[in-house]
Order: sequence, then C-alpha cells, then structure tokens
Amino acid sequence: MSDYKSEFQTLKNLFEDELNTFLNGLNIQPDILFDSIKYSLLAGGKRLRPVLLLKTAKILGCDMDAAMRFALAIECIHTYSLIHDDLPSMDNDDYRRGKLTNHKMFGEDNAILAGDALLNLAFEICLDECKKSPECVNATSFLAKCSGVSGMISGQSADLFYSKHETNDNKILEYIQINKTSKLIMASLGMASLLAGGQYFDELETFGYNLGILFQITDDILDVEGTFKTLGKSIGKDSDENKLTSVKIYGLDNSKKLVNEYADKCLNILKTIDKDTAFYMYLLQDVCNRNC
Amino acid sequence: MSDYKSEFQTLKNLFEDELNTFLNGLNIQPDILFDSIKYSLLAGGKRLRPVLLLKTAKILGCDMDAAMRFALAIECIHTYSLIHDDLPSMDNDDYRRGKLTNHKMFGEDNAILAGDALLNLAFEICLDECKKSPECVNATSFLAKCSGVSGMISGQSADLFYSKHETNDNKILEYIQINKTSKLIMASLGMASLLAGGQYFDELETFGYNLGILFQITDDILDVEGTFKTLGKSIGKDSDENKLTSVKIYGLDNSKKLVNEYADKCLNILKTIDKDTAFYMYLLQDVCNRNC
Repeated sequence: MSDYKSEFQTLKNLFEDELNTFLNGLNIQPDILFDSIKYSLLAGGKRLRPVLLLKTAKILGCDMDAAMRFALAIECIHTYSLIHDDLPSMDNDDYRRGKLTNHKMFGEDNAILAGDALLNLAFEICLDECKKSPECVNATSFLAKCSGVSGMISGQSADLFYSKHETNDNKILEYIQINKTSKLIMASLGMASLLAGGQYFDELETFGYNLGILFQITDDILDVEGTFKTLGKSIGKDSDENKLTSVKIYGLDNSKKLVNEYADKCLNILKTIDKDTAFYMYLLQDVCNRNC
Repeated sequence: MSDYKSEFQTLKNLFEDELNTFLNGLNIQPDILFDSIKYSLLAGGKRLRPVLLLKTAKILGCDMDAAMRFALAIECIHTYSLIHDDLPSMDNDDYRRGKLTNHKMFGEDNAILAGDALLNLAFEICLDECKKSPECVNATSFLAKCSGVSGMISGQSADLFYSKHETNDNKILEYIQINKTSKLIMASLGMASLLAGGQYFDELETFGYNLGILFQITDDILDVEGTFKTLGKSIGKDSDENKLTSVKIYGLDNSKKLVNEYADKCLNILKTIDKDTAFYMYLLQDVCNRNC
C-alpha cells in the first residue's frame, strides 16, 4: 500500500509539474479568462483521471510524453465539467475542494467561458498530438465520445432532469452513474490503451465502467456521512436537491454492500489482465475506504 | 448576382438536408438535451459559415463528403456560441432569429449543457474524419485554435469585459472583432484549404480576417439602424449594454466608410487567388448591403 501511495503521489506531482509548465506557456487574453481557467485547474483535487491514464500508459509501455498531453486534456475536461456543474442554474455550489467555486470568484459569465475554454483546450492539446500518430487520433476520438452526448454530458443532463422529475428507477440511476462518472474514467484507461495500439482495451473499459460506478456510490455515501472539513464541499446536498443517488434507491447499508460488490467485479476483471495490476488493486481499496 | 443567390441557396439547402439526416441519426438521452440541441441547430440562420466552407471546398476540388462533415462541425460550434452568448449572465437575450432563445425555451441549465454538447459534438464529427486522412487532422486542429482561447472564446470574454470596463481603445475593438467574429470565418475558409492540402491558405485566411471585421461592423450598424422584424432580435442592445462597437468608437458615418474600406481589402485579396472568386465578390456585396 505504501508503494501505491508513493507512486500515486509521484505521478500526481509529475502531472502537476507538467500542468504548471503548460499554463506558463499559455498567453490568454483577457486576464480574467486566463485567471479563471488557472484558478480551477490549480485548485487541487485528487487528479485521479490523469494519474490513471499515466499509470496505465506506463504499464502498457506507451510514449510517456504523449500520455502526459492526454492526461492534461482529460483534466481540462474534468475541470470544465465541475465549473459548469457548480453554476447556480445547475448544482448551485459555492464551494469546491474547500475553495470558492469558479463563478463565486469570477462571476457566472466568466465561469461559463472558462468551462467552454477548457473543453476546447482539451481538444487543442489532443489535436496537436494527432498530427504525430494515428493512435493519438483514436485516443482523441474515444475521449470525445466519452465526454459528449454519448457520455458525460448526457449523464449530467439526466442527473439534473431526474432531480426535478421523481423516479426510483434503478436503470436510470445506472444510466446517470455510467455516463456522468464512469465514462471519463473509461476515457482515462481507454486512451492509454489506444495509445498502446489497443492493448487490453475491452478489459480496461469494463474495469473503468465498474470503477466509475463504485466511485459514484462512494460519492453518494460521503454526501450523507462525510464532513465539509474532509470533503471541502457542502454535505447533504443530494438529498436537499432530490438527486437520484444510490443511497436514495438502495439505502445507506445496501449502498455500502454495493461498494463491495463492485470492488469484486473490478478485481475479477483485473485478474484477466496479464500485467502488474497491483496499483489498480490498491487504488480500489483506497476508493472503497475514501473519506474525501 | 442571381447565380450567386441561387448557388448560396443550393449550398444552404444541401447543408440543411445533411443536418437533418445527421440529427435523425443521433440518439441522445434525455429527450430534453436532444430537444434543446435540435431547437437551436434548426432555428434557421444564414448558414454563412457552412456555405463558405462548402463553396471553398468546391472551388479547391476537395472531397465534398468530408467538407460536409466539417460544415456540420463549424455550425455546431457557431450555434453553441450563440446559445451561451444569449444566457442571462452574458448578453441576456430573449430572442434570436425571431424565436425564443434556448434558455428561454429549456432553462439555463439545459441551455448550458446543449452548448457544451454542441462544442463536444463538433469535435466528435471531425475526429471521425481524422481517422481517414492527415488533412482532416490539420483542418480539425485549425478549427480548435480558431474556436478556443486563441480565438472565439477570447473574443467573447473581451467583449464582456470591456462592456463593464470603459475603453475607447480601437486596438481592443479590433481584438474583439477578430477573435469574436473573424476567427470562425477564417476557420471555414482555412479548413477547406487544409482539406485541399493547404491551397491558398494564407490568402483565404487574410480574406476571412477582413470579411469577419466587415461582417462585425455591419452587425454593429444594424444594431443601431435595423428593426426587430428583419433582424429577429432586440435592437439597440449594444449601446444599452455599453458594448465596445465600431459605432461607439468611430460613429455611424465613419463605420459605414469602414465597411467600404474592408470590402476593398477583401477584393484586393481575392485578386491574388487564381480561381473563380465571383461567389465571394457577390457575397461581399451582400454583406455590405445586409439588413438582417
């Protein structure tokens, strides 16, 4: 476990160094647009998606320079989705990671534009890589599918819609979990696979699918049992806003059982991958026991 | 002129047929996300950007199937930019093309997501093409640069910023005109050129640069002299919102003189292109005389 933690931290540090270098190389006008982009990209966070991408790229023997660019791109997309989700007309959150949300700092107009800019920037970064190899085109295309109307955006739209239109349909809950959360995790793993010519693509995609659902269930549990201090955001919001969550459909105890079921599913998939998957196993433990 | 008008209409019809086929082939859930995307994509408009792309592709002998996909992509980006610009925290417009704006129909949350979805969709469309040829990668990368923080988004951000921070600096006006308006027109022309291996890239880019400024100046004039009936949107908003426009900096009469100056610049560039450029010349006349 200590090896896992130190490797996670090493990859996270490498990523954040690259992110700083990347931002220092940009020249964006007006300043307020650049400031709001930097504010959210540098607001911390687990960096789960870039770390997953980098570790998978390492395991599969990818060109790590290209992997780092794709790690930047996926973090840009994740960050834009948080900025837009936090807006008053969406989840209306004042805090994220213990800091004021982007629109509380810069106003709604700048927050919307910073989000748009980050989504666009992700594709700018990837497309520069696409000029170098067809594998990069496949990886970028997969990212676009995962983040769009067959993925994350549909998940967010369904999440909002069913908070206003009562349902207890567990199929709809699953649709939200998969699209809103799993798809970007699948993108991290799948992009690394595609950069490596498609090695273990199906296995990694299925692993990401289940890891995403697991991650979302722990998120739902933390919204009930967590604290502002550890989470850095408001607690109890899902229930206040009538969100369709695992806790709402299955209750708290059964949701905790589901965490174990999905962790088992993930472990079974990892067994089919003939590589050193210890990192993913410890990461699973970490997600199951997370308090932030 | 009548040939120009009928060719413009033919290309517009071809584009709109393709757009309908494209939308019929999509399956987006939840319905409200799909409805809000369709509402704005099918709300009419001049289709200037796709028509410019298609005509240029035709002149340069491009594969017209690929050109049609890129025409769809640029219209998705243009449409997303209008949806987000119309939001209450941005330009706060209730009408666009004589119809209620997206957020008035579907709410701000759905309008933000429809915009995000359209931006993402544009890259999904392009990336499917990128798998077929390196020319498509170059065209997509150019689109991304024109629509992002080196282009349209910076223009919109500056437009908002300087409506709240008084200035009479004509360099800032030019920055807004180029980024907010010229860049997507440059993208239409430049993408067609790149699909044709870069033929007349510099000339078409410079033409798009000047045509964009000209188009924006006529927009500024119409905001003073137009009518709701012909424009389909509120009049006098630029001045109400203290927008930095050509009319504000140079006055109405001088702005009209500038229209002629930029039209001359455009004509001089066209003379350096050894192709049949009559379509662009008539289009220039049309823009100079536009009342909507």
